[in-house]
Amino acid sequence: MIGRTLWAIAEGYIPGGSTGEGRALESHETVCVLNPNDRDAAVALTLYFADREPAGPYRFTVPARRTRHLRFNDLSDPEPVPRDTDYASLLRSDVPVVVQHSRLDSRQSALALLSTMAFPAG
Amino acid sequence: MIGRTLWAIAEGYIPGGSTGEGRALESHETVCVLNPNDRDAAVALTLYFADREPAGPYRFTVPARRTRHLRFNDLSDPEPVPRDTDYASLLRSDVPVVVQHSRLDSRQSALALLSTMAFPAG
Amino acid sequence: MIGRTLWAIAEGYIPGGSTGEGRALESHETVCVLNPNDRDAAVALTLYFADREPAGPYRFTVPARRTRHLRFNDLSDPEPVPRDTDYASLLRSDVPVVVQHSRLDSRQSALALLSTMAFPAG
Amino acid sequence: MIGRTLWAIAEGYIPGGSTGEGRALESHETVCVLNPNDRDAAVALTLYFADREPAGPYRFTVPARRTRHLRFNDLSDPEPVPRDTDYASLLRSDVPVVVQHSRLDSRQSALALLSTMAFPAG
Repeated sequence: MIGRTLWAIAEGYIPGGSTGEGRALESHETVCVLNPNDRDAAVALTLYFADREPAGPYRFTVPARRTRHLRFNDLSDPEPVPRDTDYASLLRSDVPVVVQHSRLDSRQSALALLSTMAFPAG
Repeated sequence: MIGRTLWAIAEGYIPGGSTGEGRALESHETVCVLNPNDRDAAVALTLYFADREPAGPYRFTVPARRTRHLRFNDLSDPEPVPRDTDYASLLRSDVPVVVQHSRLDSRQSALALLSTMAFPAG
Repeated sequence: MIGRTLWAIAEGYIPGGSTGEGRALESHETVCVLNPNDRDAAVALTLYFADREPAGPYRFTVPARRTRHLRFNDLSDPEPVPRDTDYASLLRSDVPVVVQHSRLDSRQSALALLSTMAFPAG
Repeated sequence: MIGRTLWAIAEGYIPGGSTGEGRALESHETVCVLNPNDRDAAVALTLYFADREPAGPYRFTVPARRTRHLRFNDLSDPEPVPRDTDYASLLRSDVPVVVQHSRLDSRQSALALLSTMAFPAG
């Protein structure tokens, strides 16, 4: 199977403001998970902060031969992700997957983007 | 030989709009393939989506000692890549290559860029 | 334990100017360290320059199950980081961690972002 | 010693235009090399194109315990790097180093940045 089962993203920050119109241009952070394998992947995401115990796990499924681009903004169970707050994340999957992290920041009058492959920790 | 034969990119998204003039500043996503070896590389690209079976393979060649920066926007055979839609990609090559992913987003009045090395999965 | 104990970041540059208001939008460079393990990590950061001997070590702690996003702008002991100057950095930790690097540049009228996972050198 | 002796960057593109004032805000591409070791590194850079044989080697030194952030714009020997042209690069060093790639694009009214760690190919 293709990928890894443990991925880490050391950076995380959802800007509290946006200048863009609509959901597409709203400031957001995304974890992109690709499951190119033939078995559904059960994923658990844990969030780490500077000054409190971790949040989560946030659980979701990435079906076989599918990709899922999940906005951290949309996470709500067990709790929402605070804005304007530093965090980091660790993703465990029972099936190997590939994980990439990106942010769209539209706080100022033109959007900015960042993206990096997550660190394959296991 | 230099490189790997299997690469994964978990993020993919071609913005539907642009503010730039001309092809250079049109919003686009690119897969950059470097073949520093002395044999031509036959590459097959497969695209993964959130809610349908994968598309492809899209086939192209990267000649020996050449680089090819292919826009996902330009893919048409077997089918074009939908705009404003999340996707991911997997690239297989019969000769080792190096793969990097980038996007230019000019939806707002100033362009934004992202780039990351793809994940060497095999 | 998750992570690595030696990380390298070849790029470093704190823009000397900003157009954003407030600390959040001030041009800055950040090293993001995630310690998902159950032991506190003692970290030492060394900075390399083009034409002088290295600076540091800058020492800090990342507690167990915490992340710390440290701005290079804020480093002062043993010396501040010069602005508008190329540098690079090496991070050693006594406990495995995961390290990511990012920059927010607000010299012009709209901010720009970059981010990349650091290189796991050991 | 820390690092690797062979690095690949699949993406390369120097925008032909700039809106920024001065050298700092001119559109440029940079290869950042960190040599944290105690021996000087002799580096050779080869550039690959879409439709011609490679250019180079471009030779330079990164002294022990130093970093060098070299603009592709400034390369001239054996030949300058064409603007508005896709290229890729391969960096060989006789001493292990760490390599990162970045671009500042100021073609439009606000700059954009990208950066990614190069691929450690050997």
